[in-house]
Amino acid sequence: MKIAILGGTGDIGEGLALRWAHDTDHEIRIGSRKAEKATNAADAYREIIAERGADATILGDENARVTEGAEIVVVAAPPEYVTSMTQAVSGALSRNAILVSPAVKLRRDAAGFHRDGSPTHSLTAQVDEIAPPDVAVVGAFHSLAAERLATLDAELGIDTLVVGDDQSAKETVSAIIDEIAGLRALDGGPLANAPAVESLAPLCINIALQNTGLHDLGIRFK
Amino acid sequence: MKIAILGGTGDIGEGLALRWAHDTDHEIRIGSRKAEKATNAADAYREIIAERGADATILGDENARVTEGAEIVVVAAPPEYVTSMTQAVSGALSRNAILVSPAVKLRRDAAGFHRDGSPTHSLTAQVDEIAPPDVAVVGAFHSLAAERLATLDAELGIDTLVVGDDQSAKETVSAIIDEIAGLRALDGGPLANAPAVESLAPLCINIALQNTGLHDLGIRFK
Repeated sequence: MKIAILGGTGDIGEGLALRWAHDTDHEIRIGSRKAEKATNAADAYREIIAERGADATILGDENARVTEGAEIVVVAAPPEYVTSMTQAVSGALSRNAILVSPAVKLRRDAAGFHRDGSPTHSLTAQVDEIAPPDVAVVGAFHSLAAERLATLDAELGIDTLVVGDDQSAKETVSAIIDEIAGLRALDGGPLANAPAVESLAPLCINIALQNTGLHDLGIRFK
Repeated sequence: MKIAILGGTGDIGEGLALRWAHDTDHEIRIGSRKAEKATNAADAYREIIAERGADATILGDENARVTEGAEIVVVAAPPEYVTSMTQAVSGALSRNAILVSPAVKLRRDAAGFHRDGSPTHSLTAQVDEIAPPDVAVVGAFHSLAAERLATLDAELGIDTLVVGDDQSAKETVSAIIDEIAGLRALDGGPLANAPAVESLAPLCINIALQNTGLHDLGIRFK
């Protein structure tokens, strides 16, 4: 499968790229606003995989270029750029491509971090609203331990909740999540549940801040 | 320590009573609206512990009676009775007792279960508002796997988030949580974070409903 990771030079993008490149045979495409930055990141990731004696198909190019022909497009951008980046690649999306939204908009007050937005409206839903009608949107990867994800020696043993209204798209995304060793996809329900799922990201941050010895937390349901 | 569990004949109350009775030397007091029901439950719990070759101090009586002299009072009532039960025992609470609120008010729609209430106001905060001024209120045990908790042979390996504005009270409650094998108390932050913490209860229910093979879920942060 061709998996494009827009913003694939950022922390969550790097982790997903390395894990998929290492654990699967999918074609991994690193997108960035500048082709050179994407190419450099792709070269660096390929080197990391090669050092471990494996090989991988990792390409790098501008966001719209890596989007063309990709079955899966992960919008791994900082939250403030998610909608503009989605709009920028809209024309390049294949029919029946699946957009995956991992970003969470945060705000901070005296009590800690919180999801920023109305109780019923998520960033995943915002992406869904601007996506072309034949492109399904799935939310996933909101509460991942990003640093651990990008460290191939680190064990994961955590879950990621997959939300969306297109069951088939969720199953496709869940399948490529489950191919990553130590990561388990769980059905998080329809798009209407995305606020609760996105809220796990600030919760994990708060718990790491409030408890000595914990950092870079993920969640396991058990 | 003297730990009163109001509504100690219910599912979460039973689990906490059995675990504390089995794993610690604290005096466990089962409260109910009717003394006889509480006494019967206490007898049954004591029998379960005795069958495992251990002994435990488990008493049963009316809610207000078990509250007298207790250092910890867990309001393990169904959500609709939490405030009335708290008010009913208010006069019996010792100075410096700690009230622990594990209940979550739920509502259900097509997308699944949700915490019922405003985004900023929790059931834990409601208990805090009606508690006597010298009694600290701590929220905990919201996302426990209740059935597993009440099955002493079942391994837990899960966390419970402890929220509240009185750090000393949170530490006292966390200490008796950590005495239960397989249960870990994590600081969930101030009372203002209780909505996010209580929301983990419906999330666990939804995930169990949406994913084949999963039920009675708890959460581990890792």
